[in-house]
Amino acid sequence: MKFSCEKALLLSAVATASRTVAVKSSIPALEGILIEAGSALRLTGYNLETGIRTTVPAEISQSGSLVLSARLFGEIVRKLPDDTVYFSAKNYMVNIKCGLSEFNILGTDPEEFPELPSVDQQNMVSIAQNVLRSMISQTLFAVSDNESRPIHTGSLFEVEREQLTIVSVDGYRLALRHEPTQGRQGEDFFSFVVPGAALSEVEKICSGEDSISVVQGARHVLFQTGATILVCRRLEGEFLNYKNAIPRNNTIKITGDTKALLSSIERVSLIISDKLKSPLRCVFQDGVLLITTKTGIGDAADQCPIQGDGQDLEIGFNNKYLMDALKAAPAERLRLEFTSGVAPCLILPAEGEENFVYMVLPVRLKAN
Amino acid sequence: MKFSCEKALLLSAVATASRTVAVKSSIPALEGILIEAGSALRLTGYNLETGIRTTVPAEISQSGSLVLSARLFGEIVRKLPDDTVYFSAKNYMVNIKCGLSEFNILGTDPEEFPELPSVDQQNMVSIAQNVLRSMISQTLFAVSDNESRPIHTGSLFEVEREQLTIVSVDGYRLALRHEPTQGRQGEDFFSFVVPGAALSEVEKICSGEDSISVVQGARHVLFQTGATILVCRRLEGEFLNYKNAIPRNNTIKITGDTKALLSSIERVSLIISDKLKSPLRCVFQDGVLLITTKTGIGDAADQCPIQGDGQDLEIGFNNKYLMDALKAAPAERLRLEFTSGVAPCLILPAEGEENFVYMVLPVRLKAN
Repeated sequence: MKFSCEKALLLSAVATASRTVAVKSSIPALEGILIEAGSALRLTGYNLETGIRTTVPAEISQSGSLVLSARLFGEIVRKLPDDTVYFSAKNYMVNIKCGLSEFNILGTDPEEFPELPSVDQQNMVSIAQNVLRSMISQTLFAVSDNESRPIHTGSLFEVEREQLTIVSVDGYRLALRHEPTQGRQGEDFFSFVVPGAALSEVEKICSGEDSISVVQGARHVLFQTGATILVCRRLEGEFLNYKNAIPRNNTIKITGDTKALLSSIERVSLIISDKLKSPLRCVFQDGVLLITTKTGIGDAADQCPIQGDGQDLEIGFNNKYLMDALKAAPAERLRLEFTSGVAPCLILPAEGEENFVYMVLPVRLKAN
Repeated sequence: MKFSCEKALLLSAVATASRTVAVKSSIPALEGILIEAGSALRLTGYNLETGIRTTVPAEISQSGSLVLSARLFGEIVRKLPDDTVYFSAKNYMVNIKCGLSEFNILGTDPEEFPELPSVDQQNMVSIAQNVLRSMISQTLFAVSDNESRPIHTGSLFEVEREQLTIVSVDGYRLALRHEPTQGRQGEDFFSFVVPGAALSEVEKICSGEDSISVVQGARHVLFQTGATILVCRRLEGEFLNYKNAIPRNNTIKITGDTKALLSSIERVSLIISDKLKSPLRCVFQDGVLLITTKTGIGDAADQCPIQGDGQDLEIGFNNKYLMDALKAAPAERLRLEFTSGVAPCLILPAEGEENFVYMVLPVRLKAN
């Protein structure tokens, strides 16, 4: 194997492929990057759950393939001078030259590297990378980490007409984002569930306004940008029927400033810790929200101006769930909807299109 | 106790005093900040090794003192709105109000807080804060972490005529910095040794061009800026006679670019790890330095242009010691001096005043 390639391009490709390399594995090949020089130069990282393959512009003078430690390869390329990198290998003994620097390190047999699953396209949707990136970051926090309901450790992707919806739920809260697609192929309606761990990698390969294709296969999902693909398995099982779970006839509606609400809640939360848990006691009055709590550390109280009459509704919340939703909400002003102190709270944009819905279940408050 | 004070000023003072608060201590008071409202508002953090006391501009309407958890107090002040903070306490029950926020938390008896040592001035030297800061950061790395020679776990401060010298040694290397002082009182020549842990806090309280006084007491040292003092004990024992340790009749002298030397060494060091140690083999030729090494990972070679004739001197180095010195050296070009492959290497500024000297001992190389 023999190729040459610009340091900056190689570095970016190694960084991308390294995202899905296992940090520590009983199969040493999984701690490496598969380097394949054929008609193009391809780098692959695959931890058996999620795989990334990316193509690098390179001059290939002799084809071949081998596996090289991702950590070592990444560190070497990062420190090389900004110049052309000459890479050659014979019997897995790799020689890397760049400027006045030279390394000789041992690679391993590519046969030990597991094959990336091939994905037979059933349906496909495409969307701008920066839009998908924000949809993921604004829903991923609500994915469950409870392995007893594996289906909810991923996010639901649902394509209906020209719209993509992403939904995460964990039994205590729900996060939903809608956005128009840039194109689609396949059935009128299709849906699949993508593991949360894979989505946090998809988020990182997305940037700019170019589109990314999301391909639904029988057992896998493939995300494809210009030079890079990410493959992961689909989660199997029945996802929550979220449409039924979201209450739609709420009688109490108030609006407020996202940052002001978050600041008030964060302050009161300072006396809540993992050891000293206590719900936030929220009282929605006419024009003002009172937030209080009490733990072994002491008590805290805060007020936040709101618009509308909360009808003195008293409701308890897990502070973390409320903060997660307020941090993720892509709107400067929010509408909060309630029916009672024991029914879920909806968080929606105060104005304009309803492109997100967060739902947080209340927690029972002790008598004052 | 009752006072009010601007949030930004209080926050900066709490952050400063918190630096020397014990993170976890068997004496709970040491995890707190001593808050004293008298003629001024004073905050003190003291971990029994190093203490910081700082004064905050405040309106004091009732004097008093108590100890408050540094972590909790810091988090609360950080999150408060940018407004006046009203602080009051009765029987150690603290009430903090700011804007629409209010906290009630329990403080503890100030009697449990140990007293900061008082320092009887023997000698004093003053210097610009930013100068002391860089002198510390450029020598602290060579302080020993070996507790069997406690005196070398600190840096030597030496004042002679109008010059302050700071020296650190650890048995394998030496770092020395000179700078002119801004003023001095006491004996013609005086010196003392300051613990490395205290110096890393002194570094953080120094900023800007205002001067800092360094006061030598019988058993302690006091660093004093406008509103803040730092007190630590002096280390006792006999510090290395560094003047005799630095060889001055070196026959081989070369110069080179600091960044280029560092980059070459960093690259070759990529195949050296904590588990797979190996010295750098440096060969100083006429106009070029060759650096190579070989470990279980593979081998690496690099070249760096130098000025002068190295007379083919072959010398081995611990890569980390050489990198530490090159990273700290405050000069774009350096002069390296040698007598042989088994004698120490000196690193000095290539041009201008000799305001730093680094010395690195060589390591034995195996035959090629």
